Amino acid sequence: MAKAEKYRLAQIVERFGGEILGNPQTPISQVATLESAGPEHISFLTQGKFRKQLASTRAGAVILGRADSGLTGLPRIVCDEPYLYFAKVSALFNPPQAIRPGVHKTAVVERGTRIPASASIGAGAYVGRRVKLGKGVVIGPGCHIGDGVEIGAASRLHARVTIYPGCRLGQRALVHSGAVIGADGFGIAQDQGIWRKIPQVGRVVIGDDVEIGANTCIDRGALDDTIVEDGVKLDNLIQIGHNVRIGAHTAIAGCTGIAGSTRIGRHCMIGGAANIIGHLDIADRVVIHAAAVVTRSIARAGTYGGHPAEDSRSWTRNVARLRHLDALRERVRHIEQQLSLPEEQA
Amino acid sequence: MAKAEKYRLAQIVERFGGEILGNPQTPISQVATLESAGPEHISFLTQGKFRKQLASTRAGAVILGRADSGLTGLPRIVCDEPYLYFAKVSALFNPPQAIRPGVHKTAVVERGTRIPASASIGAGAYVGRRVKLGKGVVIGPGCHIGDGVEIGAASRLHARVTIYPGCRLGQRALVHSGAVIGADGFGIAQDQGIWRKIPQVGRVVIGDDVEIGANTCIDRGALDDTIVEDGVKLDNLIQIGHNVRIGAHTAIAGCTGIAGSTRIGRHCMIGGAANIIGHLDIADRVVIHAAAVVTRSIARAGTYGGHPAEDSRSWTRNVARLRHLDALRERVRHIEQQLSLPEEQA
Amino acid sequence: MAKAEKYRLAQIVERFGGEILGNPQTPISQVATLESAGPEHISFLTQGKFRKQLASTRAGAVILGRADSGLTGLPRIVCDEPYLYFAKVSALFNPPQAIRPGVHKTAVVERGTRIPASASIGAGAYVGRRVKLGKGVVIGPGCHIGDGVEIGAASRLHARVTIYPGCRLGQRALVHSGAVIGADGFGIAQDQGIWRKIPQVGRVVIGDDVEIGANTCIDRGALDDTIVEDGVKLDNLIQIGHNVRIGAHTAIAGCTGIAGSTRIGRHCMIGGAANIIGHLDIADRVVIHAAAVVTRSIARAGTYGGHPAEDSRSWTRNVARLRHLDALRERVRHIEQQLSLPEEQA
Repeated sequence: MAKAEKYRLAQIVERFGGEILGNPQTPISQVATLESAGPEHISFLTQGKFRKQLASTRAGAVILGRADSGLTGLPRIVCDEPYLYFAKVSALFNPPQAIRPGVHKTAVVERGTRIPASASIGAGAYVGRRVKLGKGVVIGPGCHIGDGVEIGAASRLHARVTIYPGCRLGQRALVHSGAVIGADGFGIAQDQGIWRKIPQVGRVVIGDDVEIGANTCIDRGALDDTIVEDGVKLDNLIQIGHNVRIGAHTAIAGCTGIAGSTRIGRHCMIGGAANIIGHLDIADRVVIHAAAVVTRSIARAGTYGGHPAEDSRSWTRNVARLRHLDALRERVRHIEQQLSLPEEQA
Repeated sequence: MAKAEKYRLAQIVERFGGEILGNPQTPISQVATLESAGPEHISFLTQGKFRKQLASTRAGAVILGRADSGLTGLPRIVCDEPYLYFAKVSALFNPPQAIRPGVHKTAVVERGTRIPASASIGAGAYVGRRVKLGKGVVIGPGCHIGDGVEIGAASRLHARVTIYPGCRLGQRALVHSGAVIGADGFGIAQDQGIWRKIPQVGRVVIGDDVEIGANTCIDRGALDDTIVEDGVKLDNLIQIGHNVRIGAHTAIAGCTGIAGSTRIGRHCMIGGAANIIGHLDIADRVVIHAAAVVTRSIARAGTYGGHPAEDSRSWTRNVARLRHLDALRERVRHIEQQLSLPEEQA
Repeated sequence: MAKAEKYRLAQIVERFGGEILGNPQTPISQVATLESAGPEHISFLTQGKFRKQLASTRAGAVILGRADSGLTGLPRIVCDEPYLYFAKVSALFNPPQAIRPGVHKTAVVERGTRIPASASIGAGAYVGRRVKLGKGVVIGPGCHIGDGVEIGAASRLHARVTIYPGCRLGQRALVHSGAVIGADGFGIAQDQGIWRKIPQVGRVVIGDDVEIGANTCIDRGALDDTIVEDGVKLDNLIQIGHNVRIGAHTAIAGCTGIAGSTRIGRHCMIGGAANIIGHLDIADRVVIHAAAVVTRSIARAGTYGGHPAEDSRSWTRNVARLRHLDALRERVRHIEQQLSLPEEQA
């Protein structure tokens, strides 16, 4: 991160709105948690369970919601969505590291590729033929950019990312170390007990403002493309199969797998370690619990969980049912006694 | 992919069999899905649900099964296994990229290793001592090949693959980016609350025609070797523990974990995100559902699923049982009313 | 591994204790399994199920527990904990490979970083600014060490490891290929349907004697640090979210995910492919089964499993309950017949 500047509370509110209670000249140089903050830090309160920490924090100022504005006497910014407000303030204090443009002397750039003067190609990176890079693109050390790849302006690839030939990333992509974009989808056909590989000739096409986590894999399409729409956020160690489409502004937590040809809607939230089998359609605004196993298409917005996944209420009920089964058995035994029926083994 | 050649339907049938209906001179230059195909493409129909797309496709020709041969008037190839036939046709139109033999000037090859003239060592790749490479082997940019590794002829490693010292790959291996073959197995022993590492001195030994997906890990054996037999196909982000043996022609989908010392049979199909615990024996021709958690050995061919996994029929029944529990409780309540028994809490 | 030396049984017992039965001069040059051992090997018996192999082994000597000391006539070492004893003997015969100190000519070391004479920087590795390396540190080929990273003495990073800026590893760390330490945590906030990134300004701080498996990811903290305490052992393909704390001497098997801000106690054992959701507290000495889905904090030492996880006994009972449900339904049907009630659909 670059060196943080200082701002006064008044300057922060000028940018992001909200209301100041306490001294508007309070100087702030960084964000911090309630627990670790000092007088130069601004902290935030979003959940009730941190109230105790609010009482003892040494923060110089705090961001909190209207309902909580009376919980502290510290200088504070009162706003509607304190977590979002904090996100904006943190981004203000922690801008992305400045780019050092240029091609490192140990990088390899193949013929037919022109590197913009504003771009940065790290040590030991490899950039293939006919690659198109937008302005200010950063290719980290040790990255591999295959032939014909296109990467939009202001995108940043951390160290050791692989982009297979022909794939496209939009603008402002952020890709973490070890991610692999465009490896072959898992396409095989049975031929008398032997697996025969099906060439994977589609691409991966990724929209603008997409973040891709460390060691996440997005496979290229078998024939058509695998699509990740604008604003999608992917955590680490996620597997996206061939010909999957992920709708705009969907967020997926780590270790999740989405099998081939499944379509995920827009504005979905998928918990960690979920598994969604292939060829399904998941509607817009679906929320899927961590570790859910989705085996059928989901046609309606809502919250789903379990193995196999069902709507969240049914799932909770099913878990509870099992716990009531002993009681039910007891009732049956009691009836049997009343009727002087022989009690059976169960 | 290399530039595709053109073939006429008659030439395709000459190679792969099947029967032509319509003009055998129809020229084809590539494969495509029914939805995206144009007149220069051949497409295919394998599942009923795509019939609607068949009606509106702009494809120049279609591959389909005998039962479906009347569903279109387009030039078509009628055959027994249209998906397999399509796989062969796609391979015809999409041969692997031609190799550029030679050692890139930025690659490092240690003493004692001879690179065949037909092999290709990519930019920034590292090849250790006493490595043995077969004819036509491709080591992608940024790969790491440890001392004493052996890789059979015509094998291809994409960018950034790691092979630890002493491991062996057979012929025609295809290894995707980020795969790690031969890292230490997870061998630790308790020593009064402290974990003591057990050296992992076995190797990974991989047969012919094996494909290994992106970021997949196969650990070296603790003492004996970890074995992957001929024709095994592994998807992305799979974990294979130490001393596992995977039988020939078994296919495993992404995100699956197989713990140490488990033996998987031949011709098995294991769904994505399955988890198979250690020291089990899984028979030949076992099919395991996605996300199944296998906690016992499986002695018979069949289909298994659930958490914990059981044969597929029991699993389906158990899921259904839970749903019937409410009805059963209602029946018990009804009996209690008939008997004027006090209704209990459950 | 370096070339193994020979030891006589008497020399081994001198180092590690235990009692010799048979010829104390028996020469041993390596460890092996009962099945694959020859006369120059020492093997071991820890579980009853290997007794059959003990009967037919060709090993020169065997390590076994007091209760089993009569099961073979071979030269043997009798001790209290044969698996731990074997671990020590294996470490004796398989010391870590000797270091070749120096900076490879293709490595890049940025200004402001001093490499100790005893350290080894591999081919194509990148070491950023102001990096601090202890004595004898090994940075494998193709590793990426970000600005300001600190790595303690005698730590070894295999090929292609990424350490993001500012992270710290203690002494004697062992990090496997493809591991990514310090990538951004998954911190995003909703802003009218759009995800806004929250800068991740914490670090990853790792204690002494920690092992990190291949392609495992440990995210940096959002504000405070992500902490991995001394002696923790992590297998492959594990995801550790931001601000997680893992207590000392905890071991975690492969494919497990631990979501943000969860605290794992000391001396825990977590099975493979487990999933622990965020913001939980797991006590010391908790054992979690493979594939368990932990959705609530665990306050007491014990063994837990299932989806959702509960204590092991309840889980086993719940699985059994489902199997008894058919029998219970049969009993209800029988009562209904006795009462001449109409049998309902269920």
